[in-house]
Amino acid sequence: MTYGLGLLCNEGVLLAADTRSSAGVDHVKSVTKLFLFQNPGQSVMAIATAGNLATTQAVVGRLNQRLGEVGNPTNLFDAASLDIAATMVGQVLREVMDEHASYVQPYGDPTASLLLAGMIGTESPRLFLIYPAGNFIEATRDTPYLQIGELKFGKPILDRTFDCGTPMNEAMKIALLSFDATIQSNLSVGLPIDMVAFPAGDLSQHEIRRIGEEDPYFKGLRDAYATGLGDLLAGLPNADWPELSRAAVAAPPG
Amino acid sequence: MTYGLGLLCNEGVLLAADTRSSAGVDHVKSVTKLFLFQNPGQSVMAIATAGNLATTQAVVGRLNQRLGEVGNPTNLFDAASLDIAATMVGQVLREVMDEHASYVQPYGDPTASLLLAGMIGTESPRLFLIYPAGNFIEATRDTPYLQIGELKFGKPILDRTFDCGTPMNEAMKIALLSFDATIQSNLSVGLPIDMVAFPAGDLSQHEIRRIGEEDPYFKGLRDAYATGLGDLLAGLPNADWPELSRAAVAAPPG
Repeated sequence: MTYGLGLLCNEGVLLAADTRSSAGVDHVKSVTKLFLFQNPGQSVMAIATAGNLATTQAVVGRLNQRLGEVGNPTNLFDAASLDIAATMVGQVLREVMDEHASYVQPYGDPTASLLLAGMIGTESPRLFLIYPAGNFIEATRDTPYLQIGELKFGKPILDRTFDCGTPMNEAMKIALLSFDATIQSNLSVGLPIDMVAFPAGDLSQHEIRRIGEEDPYFKGLRDAYATGLGDLLAGLPNADWPELSRAAVAAPPG
Repeated sequence: MTYGLGLLCNEGVLLAADTRSSAGVDHVKSVTKLFLFQNPGQSVMAIATAGNLATTQAVVGRLNQRLGEVGNPTNLFDAASLDIAATMVGQVLREVMDEHASYVQPYGDPTASLLLAGMIGTESPRLFLIYPAGNFIEATRDTPYLQIGELKFGKPILDRTFDCGTPMNEAMKIALLSFDATIQSNLSVGLPIDMVAFPAGDLSQHEIRRIGEEDPYFKGLRDAYATGLGDLLAGLPNADWPELSRAAVAAPPG
């Protein structure tokens, strides 16, 4: 399984993915699921992938291969805006599925989903989710985050604390806590986390940051959050319903 | 959809379910999904249901009908222990599925899952999850809670804060926050919540407590938790990575 998360802020867009790949608990390995496509000064893009690894690697491989092919209709560097880039990604996903899906289906699910984040030229930062069917949706002010893969465990903290006005350094913190919640609840999502941030208007070369168990900021954050949540819970009044107080007088089980 | 949750504490066991039933967003209604089977002085049991409503209502209906039938092999009041009661529930579920599943399948999923909590005679409180196949597992000290239905949103807070040593009045609080997280993130789970608590050794008649929007304890709890979580987040240091500080100098999007 995978957890991929994109957050669209007024200040910029950030994209993150875990690195756990597993085909059952006896076959766990670490793979990269976050990829950069950058043409500094003109466009900065990143793709996060979830789903069948052969499918997602084929999509990313073809997109990379075509970056140099002038005039190729799926050359990301020819896209004039990020929605055109999303169309290209969907197109390549359909291409790979058309070639492989019928061969893969007897053995398992060949499908994949992708997140595309970045900006082209003078565009504001944008964020897209490309579905297994190759069509896509865009994040908006009302729905400023998009997720792929194992998305439910990390959703409550986003719903409670994130909106598009959140500053990027705070969004990064919330994103890490969303990953932490997912990792705590699902063994198939694991550290390290790969992350990249594209501040609005910054078309310089960006790098992916890899955050592992020993990353001092993440380690301090998850510890402080766990302690703080425990303290918060302890400080909230317990239920004082009469039917519960009977428990105090009953003998504990043997 | 449904969220059903059972928590096994040393002090007792508690069982809860939401009351939202929906077949699409234009057909939402409120139904009871928590049911009592009590023979005061001898046994107290509760069942929470998730899945196909016709299936779960048929199972609960048959179990109720057979409570009076002396010698009936699925009369819950004849069970000498809660695992025997769980076997009976699984048996009735199989019976209903055998009769209806093939007719229902063309229209939708006929399956159901159930939680069974309670105690019989001098037993310690116990908690079971009955799978759609009619087999079941029991909650233990290592896995002291069991869930059915829309379980992922409410799982992180349980993983972080609940264990079998948690007092029942605190477990009740954690359960309500687990429901609150689920309700915030999934429209198909909704208030009111039905809850029942069986303190160890208390074989008296119990009642289901219904907790709605205006319940003063729940209202205070969810508000204080939302505020406290916001304060906790605000108090944790933001990421101070250099690539983020570029956002401050970049122009915000138009």
